[in-house]
Amino acid sequence: MKHAAGTSRRHILRVGAAAIGGGLLAEQKTRALETPGRLGAPLGPYGDRSPFEKAVRWRRETRTPETGSSFTPLQDSVGTLTPSSLHYERHHAGIPTIDPARHRLVIHGLVDRPLSLSVAEIRRLPSVTRIMVLECGGNSSSEWAASTAPDVQRSFGLVSCSEWTGVPLSLLLAEVGVRPGASWVIAEGADACRMERSIPLAKALGDSLVAYGQNGEALRPAQGYPLRLLNPGWEGNTSVKWLHSLKLTDQPYMARDETSKYSDLMPDGKARIFTYQMEAKSVITFPSGGQTLPGPGPYELTGLAWSGRGRIERVEITTDGGKSWVHAKLQEPRLPLAFTRFRLPWRFDGHEAVIASRAIDESGYIQPSPEALIAVRGTNSVYHFNGMKFWRVRADGTVTNVEG
Amino acid sequence: MKHAAGTSRRHILRVGAAAIGGGLLAEQKTRALETPGRLGAPLGPYGDRSPFEKAVRWRRETRTPETGSSFTPLQDSVGTLTPSSLHYERHHAGIPTIDPARHRLVIHGLVDRPLSLSVAEIRRLPSVTRIMVLECGGNSSSEWAASTAPDVQRSFGLVSCSEWTGVPLSLLLAEVGVRPGASWVIAEGADACRMERSIPLAKALGDSLVAYGQNGEALRPAQGYPLRLLNPGWEGNTSVKWLHSLKLTDQPYMARDETSKYSDLMPDGKARIFTYQMEAKSVITFPSGGQTLPGPGPYELTGLAWSGRGRIERVEITTDGGKSWVHAKLQEPRLPLAFTRFRLPWRFDGHEAVIASRAIDESGYIQPSPEALIAVRGTNSVYHFNGMKFWRVRADGTVTNVEG
Repeated sequence: MKHAAGTSRRHILRVGAAAIGGGLLAEQKTRALETPGRLGAPLGPYGDRSPFEKAVRWRRETRTPETGSSFTPLQDSVGTLTPSSLHYERHHAGIPTIDPARHRLVIHGLVDRPLSLSVAEIRRLPSVTRIMVLECGGNSSSEWAASTAPDVQRSFGLVSCSEWTGVPLSLLLAEVGVRPGASWVIAEGADACRMERSIPLAKALGDSLVAYGQNGEALRPAQGYPLRLLNPGWEGNTSVKWLHSLKLTDQPYMARDETSKYSDLMPDGKARIFTYQMEAKSVITFPSGGQTLPGPGPYELTGLAWSGRGRIERVEITTDGGKSWVHAKLQEPRLPLAFTRFRLPWRFDGHEAVIASRAIDESGYIQPSPEALIAVRGTNSVYHFNGMKFWRVRADGTVTNVEG
Repeated sequence: MKHAAGTSRRHILRVGAAAIGGGLLAEQKTRALETPGRLGAPLGPYGDRSPFEKAVRWRRETRTPETGSSFTPLQDSVGTLTPSSLHYERHHAGIPTIDPARHRLVIHGLVDRPLSLSVAEIRRLPSVTRIMVLECGGNSSSEWAASTAPDVQRSFGLVSCSEWTGVPLSLLLAEVGVRPGASWVIAEGADACRMERSIPLAKALGDSLVAYGQNGEALRPAQGYPLRLLNPGWEGNTSVKWLHSLKLTDQPYMARDETSKYSDLMPDGKARIFTYQMEAKSVITFPSGGQTLPGPGPYELTGLAWSGRGRIERVEITTDGGKSWVHAKLQEPRLPLAFTRFRLPWRFDGHEAVIASRAIDESGYIQPSPEALIAVRGTNSVYHFNGMKFWRVRADGTVTNVEG
């Protein structure tokens, strides 16, 4: 085990671990460990987590519990994947209950041979698998305000990373035969509001997927069961859930969720629309707002980085409010568009520290400071906030946002 | 989308997909799709799978439901990960319910500074993440017999692939200071039988992990919550669950599960012991025993390959009972010790076909035929069967084992 610069082997013993005497004493302490006197729980058909684990998605209150967002508890995340049960949600009309034996995907419009495919038929086609982030375009909308969200779940939790399996959309489009003049694909979901988004044909012919698998099993209902469009690296809203229709057209639909919503009002009063691309972003998940360090000593500072443009090239950490930066260690393999876990051994010396991370992706894009982002975009925006998040670690070990 | 040799674009339309008329007819068919007239289900704190999904682990009946094995439904697998809820189980005294706030890991024996660590202390240490297979040493024990198991779950289902996060054991051993003369580490679990295995010190100083994370959250209780020893590439039994004690010794313990069990009785009456290493293996998961093809036409033949020695280099497929072999397409990235999903477009022509896969790993090791394996090992063995599995696809589309 190679230790990163700035720590030494000696630090670890200072965690507070109980060094116990050797020989007989050690034996006694070992034997004193609680051992159940009876058999444990039986084997089961479909397992659950420990009753001691309490991490849940957090939901912003809405008038109807069927609409709104629920946020992944990133403060409890380990590794690079998100459990399907904790994947963020963003629904506009609730989660429909769909019988996969009755569901169909229709591909029509400006095509030579319209097709209606069952889920079973789609599962017979050549498939691909990809570990990939989905991030809501509205993730971190709290961070445009003067008073930002107090913890990592509420500020950055509309992002999750899963392994997805499905059929390349390009394959389906080759089957139907795209007619000259077609330039857009209108994707529609089977939820009550028939959520729809306009996807440029070039993307649909590129890396878009029609997914049926998530993390080794079928998509979860909250993620679009039984079929979901996936547009890698693009805002989550374009990855239409409960996909049942793809229509080829010569223009976008200018749907509600690409005009009044999911567009960015700039300082000059004009709005950016079709801002599909998600940029490089990162956040420290430990220590983060709401957590408490039990005391001075060594810790592993850690977090997640991702980019809609490809691989994470580098993550830099400051522990002095941005005056100096050091490189974090990145977990390999760094997969393009997936979460990259970063880590840095760090000693909390009992004095206040202001910490943050910034990601640099393989395109050379550098995650901006909130101030630099706001200088360009103003504060009318809701979507596409990818600025850094600073946490204040106070002398008493409590952690807050920088306003706290 | 590049099609593999042996298929053509035209095949896909023959899946049976309903080609629908263009224009008005297509519009009508689209509109006719069922749309719910009301809001769906609300957002939730910790999600579940669709009620239409029924895949479960299968359990061989035992006198006590707390002991035995449960098998991952590989026939339903997609991608390369196993959902934690469907990870195979092998328990010797049931699943203990452990409060992580009270659990400790003691490291003692031939060490300079015995240590007792809480879970919270372990989680502060430098960590690593790795996607990796766990396979029971007894996986495929059914295949030594003349009459083999009828489906992929019961024949190959004691293997699963997860993303694991934890602390390198080498780091913990450096902290306690291994004394000269120590050559083994005895790992003991906190289950009622205190399952224990002897691990050579070289492995413990190599890539062994003390894991607390699985697939982005805490280990599941059935996988050792809150702490599990992981010995990458080795038989699952050595990856002791509910880990609470590591004792450094100068000899192995010759425990029950490394003498009377988890050893291999050879044809000459001698037994191999400490056969930790898992070799290259693969199996076709679709089509596989118990499934039925709805009729002739194009399909995606697919399965999983893995090796305890590193990356999968190549997977070969036969559809004529072993007379000829073609290369399957391998899903990238191929991670060492992880599942590699393989795929091959295949046309079922309505005549009986006998299909199988064989894996070749980066060490050059070739998965043997059952006959070649049995020629060396005899049929007294229970453990370490890694022969090929042949499926018979009958003219009527039903799939059985080759005896079927």
